[in-house]
Amino acid sequence: MKASRFFIGTLKEAPTDAEIVSHQLMMRAGMIRRVAGGIYSYLPIGLRSIRKVEAIVREEMNRAGALELLMPAVQPAELWQESARWEQYGPELLRIKDRHDRDFVIGPTHEEVVTDIARREIKSYRQLPVNFYQIQTKFRDEIRPRFGVMRGREFIMKDAYSFDRDQAGLAESYKKMFDAYVRVFTRIGLEFRAVAADNGSIGGSGSHEFHVIADTGEDAIAYCPTSDYAANVEAADALPLNATRPAPAEEMKKTATPGKAKCEAVAELLDIPLQRTIKSIILATENEGAEPTIWLLMLRGDHSLNDIKANKQPGLAGYRFATEAEIIDTFGTPPGYLGPINTKKPIKVIADRTVANMSDFVVGANEVDYHITGVNWGRDLPEPVVADIRNVLAGDPSPDGKGTLEICRGIEVGHVFQLGTKYSDAMGASFLDENGKPAPMQMGCYGIGITRILGAAIEQNFDAKGIIWPESIAPFEVVLCPMGYDRSDAVREQADKLYATLQAAGIDVILDDRGERPGVMFADWELIGVPHRLVIGDRGLKESKLEYQARRDAEASLLPLDDAANVVIEKVRAALARGVSQ
Amino acid sequence: MKASRFFIGTLKEAPTDAEIVSHQLMMRAGMIRRVAGGIYSYLPIGLRSIRKVEAIVREEMNRAGALELLMPAVQPAELWQESARWEQYGPELLRIKDRHDRDFVIGPTHEEVVTDIARREIKSYRQLPVNFYQIQTKFRDEIRPRFGVMRGREFIMKDAYSFDRDQAGLAESYKKMFDAYVRVFTRIGLEFRAVAADNGSIGGSGSHEFHVIADTGEDAIAYCPTSDYAANVEAADALPLNATRPAPAEEMKKTATPGKAKCEAVAELLDIPLQRTIKSIILATENEGAEPTIWLLMLRGDHSLNDIKANKQPGLAGYRFATEAEIIDTFGTPPGYLGPINTKKPIKVIADRTVANMSDFVVGANEVDYHITGVNWGRDLPEPVVADIRNVLAGDPSPDGKGTLEICRGIEVGHVFQLGTKYSDAMGASFLDENGKPAPMQMGCYGIGITRILGAAIEQNFDAKGIIWPESIAPFEVVLCPMGYDRSDAVREQADKLYATLQAAGIDVILDDRGERPGVMFADWELIGVPHRLVIGDRGLKESKLEYQARRDAEASLLPLDDAANVVIEKVRAALARGVSQ
Repeated sequence: MKASRFFIGTLKEAPTDAEIVSHQLMMRAGMIRRVAGGIYSYLPIGLRSIRKVEAIVREEMNRAGALELLMPAVQPAELWQESARWEQYGPELLRIKDRHDRDFVIGPTHEEVVTDIARREIKSYRQLPVNFYQIQTKFRDEIRPRFGVMRGREFIMKDAYSFDRDQAGLAESYKKMFDAYVRVFTRIGLEFRAVAADNGSIGGSGSHEFHVIADTGEDAIAYCPTSDYAANVEAADALPLNATRPAPAEEMKKTATPGKAKCEAVAELLDIPLQRTIKSIILATENEGAEPTIWLLMLRGDHSLNDIKANKQPGLAGYRFATEAEIIDTFGTPPGYLGPINTKKPIKVIADRTVANMSDFVVGANEVDYHITGVNWGRDLPEPVVADIRNVLAGDPSPDGKGTLEICRGIEVGHVFQLGTKYSDAMGASFLDENGKPAPMQMGCYGIGITRILGAAIEQNFDAKGIIWPESIAPFEVVLCPMGYDRSDAVREQADKLYATLQAAGIDVILDDRGERPGVMFADWELIGVPHRLVIGDRGLKESKLEYQARRDAEASLLPLDDAANVVIEKVRAALARGVSQ
Repeated sequence: MKASRFFIGTLKEAPTDAEIVSHQLMMRAGMIRRVAGGIYSYLPIGLRSIRKVEAIVREEMNRAGALELLMPAVQPAELWQESARWEQYGPELLRIKDRHDRDFVIGPTHEEVVTDIARREIKSYRQLPVNFYQIQTKFRDEIRPRFGVMRGREFIMKDAYSFDRDQAGLAESYKKMFDAYVRVFTRIGLEFRAVAADNGSIGGSGSHEFHVIADTGEDAIAYCPTSDYAANVEAADALPLNATRPAPAEEMKKTATPGKAKCEAVAELLDIPLQRTIKSIILATENEGAEPTIWLLMLRGDHSLNDIKANKQPGLAGYRFATEAEIIDTFGTPPGYLGPINTKKPIKVIADRTVANMSDFVVGANEVDYHITGVNWGRDLPEPVVADIRNVLAGDPSPDGKGTLEICRGIEVGHVFQLGTKYSDAMGASFLDENGKPAPMQMGCYGIGITRILGAAIEQNFDAKGIIWPESIAPFEVVLCPMGYDRSDAVREQADKLYATLQAAGIDVILDDRGERPGVMFADWELIGVPHRLVIGDRGLKESKLEYQARRDAEASLLPLDDAANVVIEKVRAALARGVSQ
């Protein structure tokens, strides 16, 4: 491509609504333009990167035996009513009416449509397994779209759906997709992690997320550097931090802690470690026609409640925080000095695993300005219900027993999920097995956020000058910057020759023939993030040299004119080969 | 691809709602499945053909210098309000509301979005010309979607939009797109015709349609076999069929024609050629606060009114047919024997060009059971307003003076259009010219119906057994049918070897390793329409022969085993090369 025939829409400033660096840089590099909230046009430079992501995903899906099809964006409500998601899905599901007042949705995902295809097309076990995928535009009506392509409303996804005879088959299909995803992100060249979305052990898990590691990621990921354990903090098992409970050593005692409602303040006042204090969290669950149940969840002072885990506890699904009135009614005192001892009314107590193995701990006294110290299970309190209800912390033991957890942040770009028979049952997608008996198909679903990958790649790879693309998804792999293309015959000839050589070698090269000043040229291509740059100038040519700079390097170097093309070709090829043969 | 790992969904019967052959065959071949009215899923076989169409279109767009981008499906109402199409566009425009009750449309086309991009991005004449295109899913809420992909609601289009400094630039951009379209349809291998959508002369025209020729086409096309004239019958110039008006030879005479209201019956009764009679068509146009104007349009008895041409006559835009009451009021007689002579009230008369050069003709007498014969202009009637208001017929002179018109039927698959400044003016898309003065951009728009091309190709290429794909867009170019793949080692070895050889040569080959009976295999692939078939059987192998059959041929032939792969490779390559070097 020659720059004079291309469209380059770089901007000096990002719009003020661009809060994160990938959004800012995609705007400034002329990759995207806002059409409405969370809805973008992809300008030519942006689309080039999207197409490269798509091509890698498509190759790996095909390699894994998945079959590409294309389902519609506009889907009839009937299918969503069959699966019950017409009611269950929130307002992110854009429900529309056609001219005949019939209900439709703009598909945020395609489980219903693909299950409808499967139940019509697949009659016999001989047709299984099959895995259908598509690369398609989705719509989710986010209440607050933001962060550019990271949380848009209209976006491109690869979604795949596997159908198997039984759970063993599903596990195999799932493994194939898991491996394909590893190859996809390896080939793209991103630092990523597959994390368990539920219990953390690869293989046994029914769901994994693929995260691109970046400080700006929305998700916290717990991982073990000395094993392959990784899980979303939302889901990572928190083991007890004390294997056994020490015997009581102190007497229980009411202790004045005037003005010290927080655990940190109490620990400081009493000169004890924070790890000796207990945080009491008061929740309520509704009971139809009766008073709400009040719960007290006990966490160690330095721990935090894990909402998802709490919601999974028997009786706690759909909990809310108790109101001040409920707290006063139950504990006889306002929030601040609450604890499980001497409540006014009965409550349900759940102790976190770590709390369950503590002794001589400190809880609120249910009296303003007082705590109780030296509290012990069994002696001062009945043995509690024990559960994992906290978030893991860096330094916690890894649930696989193979080391210590660390925490990093990630951007979810892929998700693999064993659906089982959820949709097959709801929509009657069954097949006849070897014995001629009907059985529901076992389904898996597998998503990759194509457009989101661009944002995630940038969050992981940028500097003050702009984007630093991996070769695999760069809009161009190499840029040629001639100094005086319009003035110097020698420069123009060499630039044209290099351009022809690189093109013939299959390199995606752009020749900047716009006649811009070097400063403008360099700034544009550094902002756009082309990974390799060759500068062709009269001064260098006199010595038969070209200036080469990798976008990621701080310094340029000189290459012999005769060798420059080959050096760059080899660099690009080596980068693109990464992960291909896995 | 091996058939055992692919999804083949052939059907014995097409559903009853499939009215035309392409819809029936696409369903039966397992290319498409209905999701809702006019909304389809493209199964793997169908998507393969779509992707091949897309690839050819993309290559030719790129070759013509157009730049690919991608605009959103969901578009804000504000843009459509700016262009005034929010009000003007009919209910085909699906208007929707998001969760915040804001108005959006699902884009049936993208003039507004692309003009918005242009007005923001293009500041200077130095950035022009530019041509942006996309291959994207569109939605048009057809009142009665039918004919499968031919008139669906959700469909894939290539739409391109050119921006130029001036009309000369627009004409050049238009020519480039016109030429690219010729290459696209030539490469696909369809019999097609570029027809003027308005005045029929290529170059001078502001709009051309590209039609695939097929007897089942919705459009009638007039073309001259001895020149390059071609136009939609809607738009084709109808010349007078008599160069000069003969002198009157008869006296005007009221003649009884009892019960003969139609021209054909009158001509038969009077024993004169139908070409001597005049058909009177009575129209009305509204006048605010006054009586409607009544028009009498005069056509030769064997001619038919062209609605589009009539609508272009001064004063006639938006006409309707006159009511019976209006006719009685104006002519003093009910419909049946109407004419321009002796009307009760004044009327406006327009004579078709041919009528204007007639003499001694026959018109209705405005009296039941009577006509007037021997009528002549100037003598019996004032000279009329003359206009081209009829449809051309086969045998008419070609407007370019180079022969005689013929009529064929076509399916519109592409349209190129000079928009001029319609959207630039409405939406303020201007640039600074060489003198620093703002000027509106000259726009063109250029569409190709990607999914419709599949239907059109089938309407042109099928037989009783199924589809006959051109190689360019066939889901597979070659099918290998081994007879007893699971039973005969020799057959399996040869089939595998051929498969490897063809794949290595870049041929898109499918090996039918399903173990189906020959009858089932042959029927499937003939229905699906794979253009080349090689049959590998023990009997042939004994003589070192393979059976080859082109889908289009009636008979199979035997090829030497050693030569078979090369023969097929050459056939496919020759077909794919068609039009590439143009």
